[in-house]
Amino acid sequence: MGNQTIYFRNSPKIVSTSTIAGPKECEGIIGRYVETALADDMYGESTYEKAECKMLSHVIDGAMSNAGIDRDQVDMIVSGDLLNQIISASFAARDFSVPFLGVYGACSTMAESLAVAAAFVDGGYCRRVVAATGSHFASAERQYRYPLELGCTRPPQAQWTVTGAGGALVAAEGNGIRITAATLGKVVDFGITDVNNMGAAMAPAAADTILAHFRGTKEDLEAYDLIVTGDLGALGSRILKDLTWEKGLDISANHVDCGEIIYNVIEDEFQGGSGAGCSAVVLNSYLYSKMMAGSIKKILFVATGALLSTVSSGQGESIPCIAHAVVLER
Amino acid sequence: MGNQTIYFRNSPKIVSTSTIAGPKECEGIIGRYVETALADDMYGESTYEKAECKMLSHVIDGAMSNAGIDRDQVDMIVSGDLLNQIISASFAARDFSVPFLGVYGACSTMAESLAVAAAFVDGGYCRRVVAATGSHFASAERQYRYPLELGCTRPPQAQWTVTGAGGALVAAEGNGIRITAATLGKVVDFGITDVNNMGAAMAPAAADTILAHFRGTKEDLEAYDLIVTGDLGALGSRILKDLTWEKGLDISANHVDCGEIIYNVIEDEFQGGSGAGCSAVVLNSYLYSKMMAGSIKKILFVATGALLSTVSSGQGESIPCIAHAVVLER
Repeated sequence: MGNQTIYFRNSPKIVSTSTIAGPKECEGIIGRYVETALADDMYGESTYEKAECKMLSHVIDGAMSNAGIDRDQVDMIVSGDLLNQIISASFAARDFSVPFLGVYGACSTMAESLAVAAAFVDGGYCRRVVAATGSHFASAERQYRYPLELGCTRPPQAQWTVTGAGGALVAAEGNGIRITAATLGKVVDFGITDVNNMGAAMAPAAADTILAHFRGTKEDLEAYDLIVTGDLGALGSRILKDLTWEKGLDISANHVDCGEIIYNVIEDEFQGGSGAGCSAVVLNSYLYSKMMAGSIKKILFVATGALLSTVSSGQGESIPCIAHAVVLER
Repeated sequence: MGNQTIYFRNSPKIVSTSTIAGPKECEGIIGRYVETALADDMYGESTYEKAECKMLSHVIDGAMSNAGIDRDQVDMIVSGDLLNQIISASFAARDFSVPFLGVYGACSTMAESLAVAAAFVDGGYCRRVVAATGSHFASAERQYRYPLELGCTRPPQAQWTVTGAGGALVAAEGNGIRITAATLGKVVDFGITDVNNMGAAMAPAAADTILAHFRGTKEDLEAYDLIVTGDLGALGSRILKDLTWEKGLDISANHVDCGEIIYNVIEDEFQGGSGAGCSAVVLNSYLYSKMMAGSIKKILFVATGALLSTVSSGQGESIPCIAHAVVLER
């Protein structure tokens, strides 16, 4: 490398995607693009965690079947999620007799898993890899913050964890969106300790990776139709634009944040959506559809993750964050 | 692939390692081989979690410095651990300004991170990658079972989570142990629900991966000096040998389990050691030293992981497990 960007010379392709989202999510922009719209976010299961796992399993299966591929033609599943010990991903992988690589990057998982999938396909180690992730509002709230039953008031800087999942089948052959490069992020910590202000915590990591990407590739910002961040939300997006502008890169004209656009109605989600499922659903439904149709040709997809736990916060630690970027081209 | 085994044609090499372990661990076989022997398992920190993180940071740094490599010459750190949201790995990575790929495979993390590191180096995406993991007895007990302060009685099938960490620098160039192939595991669940019997839960996953490896590569068992499993312990190792024997592969002559050999004195660790640090320490100290000296020439390193969480167990789920294998050759 010499810099943080790696190039995929054989251009592995996203040949199919699959998405699922909850009723609140489907009221917004993704409603017309998502493959499966849930009427009930319990998805017929007895617990939130099982519903989250079922969503993830659904999109892994969907990414394969939408490409007309049997599971025995898939060489690997790369997946992770927000729950302790990534149980949604591990239990979903149990449903498939396919080698499994568990990853953890919090809400950056969609970009991380796409980068790993692309490297394994591009390097000739696998023919087809499914990259997938998801999240569930209720399981995330009770693990990271408070059980919903307590009815705690949410502060205005809070975001709403997306109930949804998205998966992509990355293949060496086929028609789809090419993954041409990835810029893997460093762990960045600006000292934010407010666990309700993920956008502010993650924005410096997004800025670091975006700046590293343009420094390393020497590309023009204009080469990209969109710079898409994962789930910074409204406040985090403003901070990101300030941070990159300070370093001489004005991304305001073509930046969009999945968390900022996913919800139509500002009700109690305040700064917008968050969670690993946020960018996974927006990328694999709305953006994939626009790219396949040709109206968006090249994006830098930068999913961001906050790498805290309740234990680290309880022990007084600040919130280290990370952002991974992948270049997607039609 | 066509099978589960991937081959690294350019043979990335482990050019250096670094290990650290607690006082109880250093009484055993690794005592003479471990780089840093701790007199106090708090490692000068105020919490078990911070001690675990400091150990991991120590071996990541050690793997670089033992090879005479500066951190700006390292392209990626691949790491994970047992704690919720892999905070040890994420917070350790914060100390280094190096791209970070977080992985989760429970106690299989050493093999998983080595396989990912080897693929990124072999594919030409990175020149040097550090793969590292660790665990701490006290942080694992309080997260997965009971706080030590409760003084709960341990059942005879229990294992003792190793306090220790190990890291390896995987590089395209240099003198070291070659990583020539990897067999990535599937999630296997035999329906075990006893969270104190990890060996029994993980043995079927180890058997599945070992059988897939020999089926796929068509190698003879005799090609290997050792088949090294991660932390099945005494009971789990017996189950593994039975399961592979039933399928026509008798590994009993050259099988060794890191968990079974790590502790000298059977005091209260019963079936032996466990935890991500168990195989990480044994591989990167004892086995690495023997391989570099030439007395062991080729091993199949099969680290196993139990992919449960306290929530999944509490919701009545059984324990899905995984095993990843890497082929190491002098």
